[in-house]
Amino acid sequence: MAAAGDPYVARLDEALRFLREHDDFLIVSHVQPDGDAISSTIAVRWLLDRLGKRSLMINEGRVPPRLAFLPYAGEIVNYGGRKPERRFRAVVAVDCADFSRIGLVSELFDEPCALLNIDHHPTNDAFGTVNLLRHDAAATAEILFDLIEHAGLAIDAEAATVIYTGLLTDTGGFRYSNTSPHVMAAASKLLAAGADAHRLADRLLERMTVSQLRILQRGLARLEFTEDGRVGWLYIEPKDLEETGASGEDLEGLVNYARNIDGVEVGLLFKGMEDGTVKVSFRSAGKADVAAIAQRFGGGGHIRAAGCRLAMPLDEAMRLVVDTVRRALDSMP
Amino acid sequence: MAAAGDPYVARLDEALRFLREHDDFLIVSHVQPDGDAISSTIAVRWLLDRLGKRSLMINEGRVPPRLAFLPYAGEIVNYGGRKPERRFRAVVAVDCADFSRIGLVSELFDEPCALLNIDHHPTNDAFGTVNLLRHDAAATAEILFDLIEHAGLAIDAEAATVIYTGLLTDTGGFRYSNTSPHVMAAASKLLAAGADAHRLADRLLERMTVSQLRILQRGLARLEFTEDGRVGWLYIEPKDLEETGASGEDLEGLVNYARNIDGVEVGLLFKGMEDGTVKVSFRSAGKADVAAIAQRFGGGGHIRAAGCRLAMPLDEAMRLVVDTVRRALDSMP
Repeated sequence: MAAAGDPYVARLDEALRFLREHDDFLIVSHVQPDGDAISSTIAVRWLLDRLGKRSLMINEGRVPPRLAFLPYAGEIVNYGGRKPERRFRAVVAVDCADFSRIGLVSELFDEPCALLNIDHHPTNDAFGTVNLLRHDAAATAEILFDLIEHAGLAIDAEAATVIYTGLLTDTGGFRYSNTSPHVMAAASKLLAAGADAHRLADRLLERMTVSQLRILQRGLARLEFTEDGRVGWLYIEPKDLEETGASGEDLEGLVNYARNIDGVEVGLLFKGMEDGTVKVSFRSAGKADVAAIAQRFGGGGHIRAAGCRLAMPLDEAMRLVVDTVRRALDSMP
Repeated sequence: MAAAGDPYVARLDEALRFLREHDDFLIVSHVQPDGDAISSTIAVRWLLDRLGKRSLMINEGRVPPRLAFLPYAGEIVNYGGRKPERRFRAVVAVDCADFSRIGLVSELFDEPCALLNIDHHPTNDAFGTVNLLRHDAAATAEILFDLIEHAGLAIDAEAATVIYTGLLTDTGGFRYSNTSPHVMAAASKLLAAGADAHRLADRLLERMTVSQLRILQRGLARLEFTEDGRVGWLYIEPKDLEETGASGEDLEGLVNYARNIDGVEVGLLFKGMEDGTVKVSFRSAGKADVAAIAQRFGGGGHIRAAGCRLAMPLDEAMRLVVDTVRRALDSMP
């Protein structure tokens, strides 16, 4: 996809030169690493292996249990800010929009330290010595796919599994609007190289923990709609998390059950917090601008996904927000 | 992907010759058409349009409401066996494993009638005058993608949307094991041609009807597990369908909620039927052969997905089957 003379090709060349120039690397991703962060971390390790280089993978935050099956995932160190035993003069940072996302691991950087910054976030501020950025990539793993191809290396089943994982998680299983022709072309080559589409989708997207199930049961049982069916909402109280063992992360996606019902224009999730405030997640099916609604309550976000926090009892917050959303929909052309 | 000398290329040539030789076509798919059937029906119409040919799309069964937004879907006739007003001498049958799948629409075939059979089912018995079969295609729409490419036609956004729909629905959103490198390469080209990955996934995979939600609420609330968490099951009674307005189709996928929980090896759905029998759906997470278990009750299926029907009260059927599955798991190596 990248033709000669393309500035992206020049950046790929520069990144490869960086990797060839140094010998001993620290690979780091952002704090609380997610699928793309772990996937990109391991992909860089795989690439450095092939180039005959030493590397250590260190992140602030553990590998999510769901991703522990990935090759080399067991080698990723979870750094919590102990006294550094050693420091690194060459670093590859992946999927970090800015330097602060590296977290405590930056304590391990020597002075001076050469830093290769590989990322897909449009807000990336090019904090590296060398920067390999592609804002239209769905995942940092997609850029690593390009880099490995550009290096002329044959992707094996392990690397394919790792990179496919990054694509799968950052595109929501090829469902988000970042699912580009290039993502699918890369996915095609990764399947040919040995990634298992069914197994990975099953493990990464279909499987649910018992806590996730328990919180889904409670959430769904409480799903309510306005009479016209255009607003759907549900709520979760602090005791629900205690009783089900669910974490805040397990609530992700719950609001989509409200939004995804036929006829619903705006889905809402109300989370009663320990401190007595209420966090509200807004999701629009497309017509309503929920960022504008959330802004009225001091919140913000995107047209289709927004949030705010209210300092009032849960039932009052629900009445107020549902009523505001209903009136906003009524006044829509 | 198809090199010269490949027998598949010869079949593509033969199919194109068939379409060029005739002028006035009936396009038909199987009774109760699903996503791939509708998608393939429309793709053939689009191709025949480009070749300057007349065609009518007629199926036995309505277009599922979820697919009504597809271009040309409104032109598909739902034939219920009225007296045929006219007959056709050239037919293209898509996604039909054998002649009987065409249903009542075969009344509209003239004698003699030239028939092009395009299908991906491994069991297809080559009932056509000309047969374009590819058993390793994930969807019949995938074969139509090949045919259109082979004809040298540029796929536009409408055709891309239609064919992507067939790929998406027959691979379960690129999650089933039929998600091949070729499927993903086709998806890449279809997105480049104007298919909208996010919009289609949203409409076809994410959206739920209120009845589907209501039945999911009831099903989930009843989800139970054996003590060791290796068997999960839920049940639906006839009155649940009445009270929620759900159809049998709305129950599809419900059993996966049982199977998808961490630690579950076998998920079960018990459907109490109007006639007093109980239909049981079995899903294996991979280790257990549920076909073997279902066979003990006179049922059958595949290793990972099977079913049987029992003539006994619902609670008795649940006790019996859960106990049998538990013992089968215990005796597994």
